Amino acid sequence: MTVLKDQSQAGAGRTIISVDAMGGDRGPAAVVAGISLSAKKNPEIGFILHGPRAELTKLVSKRKHLAGRCEIRDARDVVSMQDKPAQVMRTGKNTSMWSALDSVRNGEATVCVSCGNTGALMALSILRLRKLSGIYRPAIAVMWPSRNPQGFNIMLDGGADIRADAKDLMQYALMGTSYARNGFGLERPRIGLLNVGTEEHKGRAELKEAHDLIAANARRADFEFVGFVEGRELPDDACDVIVTDGFTGNVALKTGEGIASLISDLLKEAFKYSPLSRLASVLAYTSLQRLKKRIDPRRANGGVFLGLNGTVVKSHGAADATGISSAVKLAFELAQSGFSEKLAARVASAALLDQDEPSEATSDGENQ
Amino acid sequence: MTVLKDQSQAGAGRTIISVDAMGGDRGPAAVVAGISLSAKKNPEIGFILHGPRAELTKLVSKRKHLAGRCEIRDARDVVSMQDKPAQVMRTGKNTSMWSALDSVRNGEATVCVSCGNTGALMALSILRLRKLSGIYRPAIAVMWPSRNPQGFNIMLDGGADIRADAKDLMQYALMGTSYARNGFGLERPRIGLLNVGTEEHKGRAELKEAHDLIAANARRADFEFVGFVEGRELPDDACDVIVTDGFTGNVALKTGEGIASLISDLLKEAFKYSPLSRLASVLAYTSLQRLKKRIDPRRANGGVFLGLNGTVVKSHGAADATGISSAVKLAFELAQSGFSEKLAARVASAALLDQDEPSEATSDGENQ
Repeated sequence: MTVLKDQSQAGAGRTIISVDAMGGDRGPAAVVAGISLSAKKNPEIGFILHGPRAELTKLVSKRKHLAGRCEIRDARDVVSMQDKPAQVMRTGKNTSMWSALDSVRNGEATVCVSCGNTGALMALSILRLRKLSGIYRPAIAVMWPSRNPQGFNIMLDGGADIRADAKDLMQYALMGTSYARNGFGLERPRIGLLNVGTEEHKGRAELKEAHDLIAANARRADFEFVGFVEGRELPDDACDVIVTDGFTGNVALKTGEGIASLISDLLKEAFKYSPLSRLASVLAYTSLQRLKKRIDPRRANGGVFLGLNGTVVKSHGAADATGISSAVKLAFELAQSGFSEKLAARVASAALLDQDEPSEATSDGENQ
Repeated sequence: MTVLKDQSQAGAGRTIISVDAMGGDRGPAAVVAGISLSAKKNPEIGFILHGPRAELTKLVSKRKHLAGRCEIRDARDVVSMQDKPAQVMRTGKNTSMWSALDSVRNGEATVCVSCGNTGALMALSILRLRKLSGIYRPAIAVMWPSRNPQGFNIMLDGGADIRADAKDLMQYALMGTSYARNGFGLERPRIGLLNVGTEEHKGRAELKEAHDLIAANARRADFEFVGFVEGRELPDDACDVIVTDGFTGNVALKTGEGIASLISDLLKEAFKYSPLSRLASVLAYTSLQRLKKRIDPRRANGGVFLGLNGTVVKSHGAADATGISSAVKLAFELAQSGFSEKLAARVASAALLDQDEPSEATSDGENQ
């Protein structure tokens, strides 16, 4: 059987990550460089790599750390950044993205990594992996550099769905709790709900409703609910997980990236300004590199799709080898912790306790 | 007559700014220090200062630049940051904020500056100054440090109203155009509409409708419409004015502040790390101060209320003397350019041309 052969080729006893080699801005060479970096650092990872066989074979054969640990699956089509999700769902059967997701669907790999078109990846993920029973809107969890002890916050939804009602936001709180616990070892994460003020009378009606729903679930789901938080808490230490709809979350995420990039450029300019400041930049080099690493979006770019039967890690489209390797590391940690199963159990138990209010999604028969 | 006496006392021939001395986090001393700084820099400004007479007289008498240029209006009550807008509207008649707005209402001053409670200031501004004919939702225009030639972008709404429909967003584009032209001399500002992607098929339905409405008004209102922009364009050079609803705008604004503050703290830490990096920080001091000035929220903190009969500049609650002085400078420039009258004319001419679709606001009789 193909499946058995492939698994043994990717490496016996290893945790297998399915990787879409195509669709990123830097092409398959960056992806192969990234997984090679991961293979070097972590002997327990094996890969199934999806894309045009001839091209990938050439790239993989140059990387000695990938020898015997990377199975190639031929897929001749590529989802481009311009492709519309609906189109990809109809005609994307031969794409590397579809093939990469199917390795998770078939049980050959636990987690899929792709740096392709986010909209298409979410649409194909829902099509091939299906939503978890009880989940109406899957979400993308993203990471923010922050002041709290672990150095980052988790925010969801980062842009899977531009809408979210009170019940969706409550489910995001549950999924965020599972992710924080299994991905990062935060036993009792602090959850905040993003709003324009911290007072309970402020904000949209669905946010007040969500506030009460989340508060009601805090004890049984074992998280601490800190209530409403504002945009400035995204990089702060008021909480560990911040819940919002995908429209607001996406705007906040891109705003943060934009501001960080502007400051970084202005800082470079400032250091070029005079002979003294040029000397200063040499003396401060190590410290500045440490700062850069701390807020580098490439290192915190593993957006994770939650609410599906299986886990998908979306890497930044512009990710280089460092970015890909960081996404693979996160994928490995989630696979090791049995995250998918634990998240499913959490959502199911919340749905059971929620009997007086059957959800739309539980009855739509989309699961399993 | 009191009015005449007051005007002459604030300074004959000067442009009079009405200033609420109370309600900021740092108290009236910071406000008086700020207006003194402005008075020193600009001999053409005079002030009417509102708050408890005894306290203000003492503070003003210490500042030689304010001699003969600052009329004090006694107001014994203060709007606190905790006060609810509805409450202030009912019982705020003796507050310094109410009094400061009434100087604009009475025609004694052209622009009002306050660093008090934003919600209360907007509610009182609508109550005392009234909305412009044809405007349904006034907006707060805020400034972002950015990469474009003028060094900043204007975004509205920064949080006046958590809702905005397509027509409101189109009016924000018109008001933003007037503000950019009269406040900052941008003859034909580039307008962008904030969304989660730049493709026309993306985003909420009301955003697609707003996109078409704004595009239809671009030529007659003489702005360039660049279409949808993403969060990362807020500090970039894709446009000069970014239009969004007050919920999204407020989250983006606070997110940007939070990220800038985190990076600034991490930078300080990085420079303290080793003897070499401490030396570097000494050598780079001047360049870093220049960078700090460029992205300092205190210098770009003049949020301006648009869509009222009169102009209100909201300074940051935590503003110090530099922040207050920056808000006063903006107020002066808007007063000098005849901004209020020009904005009113622009909105009126757009309403006239929009005859097939009479607005709700034109017929609600709230104006004048």
